Amino acid sequence: MIMSRIQAPPDEAQGNLTDRLLAGLPAEAVLTDPDVTASYANDMASFCPAGVPAVVVLPRTVEQVQHVMRTASELRVPVVPQGARTGLSGGANASDGCVVLSLTKMDRILEINPVDRIAVVEPGVVNAVLSRAVGEHGLYYPPDPSSWEMCTIGGNIGTASGGLCCVKYGVTAEYVLGLDVVLADGRLMSTGRRTAKGVAGYDLTRLFVGSEGSLGIVVRAILALKPRPPQQLVLAAEFASGAAACDAVCRIMAGGHVPSLLELMDRTTVRAVNDMAHMGLPESTEALLLAAFDTPDPAADLAALGELCEAAGATQVVPADDAAESELLLKARRLSLTALEAVKGTTMIDDVCVPRSRLGELLEGVERIADKHGLTIGVVAHAGDGNTHPTVCFDAQDPDESRRARESFDEIMALGLELGGTITGEHGVGVLKKEWLAREIGPVGVEMQRAVKQVFDPLGILNPGKLF
Amino acid sequence: MIMSRIQAPPDEAQGNLTDRLLAGLPAEAVLTDPDVTASYANDMASFCPAGVPAVVVLPRTVEQVQHVMRTASELRVPVVPQGARTGLSGGANASDGCVVLSLTKMDRILEINPVDRIAVVEPGVVNAVLSRAVGEHGLYYPPDPSSWEMCTIGGNIGTASGGLCCVKYGVTAEYVLGLDVVLADGRLMSTGRRTAKGVAGYDLTRLFVGSEGSLGIVVRAILALKPRPPQQLVLAAEFASGAAACDAVCRIMAGGHVPSLLELMDRTTVRAVNDMAHMGLPESTEALLLAAFDTPDPAADLAALGELCEAAGATQVVPADDAAESELLLKARRLSLTALEAVKGTTMIDDVCVPRSRLGELLEGVERIADKHGLTIGVVAHAGDGNTHPTVCFDAQDPDESRRARESFDEIMALGLELGGTITGEHGVGVLKKEWLAREIGPVGVEMQRAVKQVFDPLGILNPGKLF
Repeated sequence: MIMSRIQAPPDEAQGNLTDRLLAGLPAEAVLTDPDVTASYANDMASFCPAGVPAVVVLPRTVEQVQHVMRTASELRVPVVPQGARTGLSGGANASDGCVVLSLTKMDRILEINPVDRIAVVEPGVVNAVLSRAVGEHGLYYPPDPSSWEMCTIGGNIGTASGGLCCVKYGVTAEYVLGLDVVLADGRLMSTGRRTAKGVAGYDLTRLFVGSEGSLGIVVRAILALKPRPPQQLVLAAEFASGAAACDAVCRIMAGGHVPSLLELMDRTTVRAVNDMAHMGLPESTEALLLAAFDTPDPAADLAALGELCEAAGATQVVPADDAAESELLLKARRLSLTALEAVKGTTMIDDVCVPRSRLGELLEGVERIADKHGLTIGVVAHAGDGNTHPTVCFDAQDPDESRRARESFDEIMALGLELGGTITGEHGVGVLKKEWLAREIGPVGVEMQRAVKQVFDPLGILNPGKLF
Repeated sequence: MIMSRIQAPPDEAQGNLTDRLLAGLPAEAVLTDPDVTASYANDMASFCPAGVPAVVVLPRTVEQVQHVMRTASELRVPVVPQGARTGLSGGANASDGCVVLSLTKMDRILEINPVDRIAVVEPGVVNAVLSRAVGEHGLYYPPDPSSWEMCTIGGNIGTASGGLCCVKYGVTAEYVLGLDVVLADGRLMSTGRRTAKGVAGYDLTRLFVGSEGSLGIVVRAILALKPRPPQQLVLAAEFASGAAACDAVCRIMAGGHVPSLLELMDRTTVRAVNDMAHMGLPESTEALLLAAFDTPDPAADLAALGELCEAAGATQVVPADDAAESELLLKARRLSLTALEAVKGTTMIDDVCVPRSRLGELLEGVERIADKHGLTIGVVAHAGDGNTHPTVCFDAQDPDESRRARESFDEIMALGLELGGTITGEHGVGVLKKEWLAREIGPVGVEMQRAVKQVFDPLGILNPGKLF
């Protein structure tokens, strides 16, 4: 089971729990119908066990969140914070008898300030809603996970989400200046600042970013914004081998280029997209590289980048002429995961990030692992970051294939670590990778991380069974 | 006294301490001559008490640092880590009977990798040495504190240093990917990664950045690099009031510009620089703004920025024609603090950062405070970040003036907090501002920060009496 320190409370306590929660929350914010609460049990990860929540709460105010945490602390009931449950590591999965604390109703944008280049938001604001709202002020909130039309800023902060933009603009962590956090015991703590710089005390803001709801409940965030860049222009380059495409990535980055996007799709992925969407991508390709610039003269920058691709052996280089053509090229990338899911019905999406100089070795290794297990594994990658999503396609009804899928998934993480990489570039540890965290950070690291967890969550009620 | 939890060991224990240190360090790495060790007692802050160190150690290897920390833990002796002691908050000041742990001999650049855009360094590498070394590979390490020719990367990490570059490139924290840290008990812990992205577990790397040596000893750092940008071109704009200059800053930032530098010097500072260096800056000016771009077409970008300055009431706008003229304009800014020191012999340099939309109010308030106390306070500011260095000029031999200097320094911090700012943008808390930290982060914040400190330093031997 995924619960480690907290026992599910007996039914009697559960009745007590609901009553206690209702003392500080309106009736419509407390869901107890088992059919309804069951629908909050999982995020989008495969192979991650989930428990049965006792109750789902949907607070609308900071005070209500404080009430939930005070109640949970008093009754020693685990609390699982959730955003839109688009996560891919089981980090938002319920545990037995828990309070699911959904932050989706706290969805107000409180401030957008173009001079200070910040936004102040509640955690339930959807990424795309914020992106569009700041866009109207000439501003840009870069982090753009694939699920950006659904996922929430609170969830993005919990997993330190990335996206296509990271090669130029970095991950969510770079954009979180300050937080209001409700602690396990219900007290409110503010971290960080609304200024561009600040070094007063330890950086607890960054400690919370990526902590997967295990240290406290983020109820407000001060986010840094950038000026909205010019519309990006995209180029596609086709290669006769994955190695050549990775060589191009290395040349581009060593050459000092700063593309706004540098993505790779392998042969398997290109074919899956063609099969699903009939996009007419070249079937002969072994690897497709997509690059973009959002600079003042993107066509010139793309031309220079195209030359590097050709020098690395690109068989074809196709720069888009305008925004519409750019979107079309990107569409193939955006459809990749859906297309790979269609191959066998189920996928496990890995998230191994390696130094970009080792990207070619990772691709080679994944191919070896796929062959060994007789599986289809498509690789899409934020190539400029060395962040790959090897996606294992399998039939979940076939126990042997499922076992091989899980084994290959693990072997890919082992390979990533061997190459000096990390088991997770942007999806987080959650339940899915917690056996692997210790391999990456070592026993001293685990000991110190557990001790930090103990500081913020002495009763072990915050998202128990995740990360460690 | 600055020591809180640790008593100075008796002389006998001190003899024992030196012998024990010598068991794992070569003789030349252990300094005990009181005249010599006294020279390691202070960093560059005014008004910060310092104790008398028992011994200074200069290790050259990680194992030697581990030996020092094991010894200090066993004997319960405080350890004060030091880089080049250019800090401005007393964060590196010795405490009575401490081991001063100088990392200056661990000064090797271990790796520069242009594909992965990283450098791996020991903590004693001087900022300028690293900057030049990566420059030879077409790379750029942005953080550029004023002391960059002397200060070390380890010190920069300890205080999360900034500099002139921050308005475009951010602070030291943005460039630290991973660390090797010797813990208080001598164990070695690795944090972070050498990949562009990574979210495996809590972000302990960022917890160490800015922790002022109070959580562990950084012995190796993996730093992110950027491609070297084109040479920047500078513009100077003169204003008839500080308010007009601040209005220009707001217009520039709200207008979506991304200057590589946006600095402000007030009238007092301009005159001090003229008096010292006879630079012929306009004596009539009330505020001088310096802006730069390192874009592909800096002249065009400066022209647009110059128009915004004029719209905000600039009385004169002077763009540099080339790198030499740019350097000349910047020289005035670089001389500011030295020139202000010459006014009265001693300065206290504050480091208040406010939301840039409040910059004008801060300037006004500082003028009011200077008038009230009959003091000269010059303001230089990283205006694009809202990070100001109000510099109180006083005669340290005059007790009353010294008292007024200290009072005005504190009033400036209070004003900064009132305006939604922070007491320290880039210099750190150290000894100088520890009474103020609680006012900024509140009692819950202090409690949690102290608990985090306790996790990493249960005996309270790491840089005691700093921060809290």
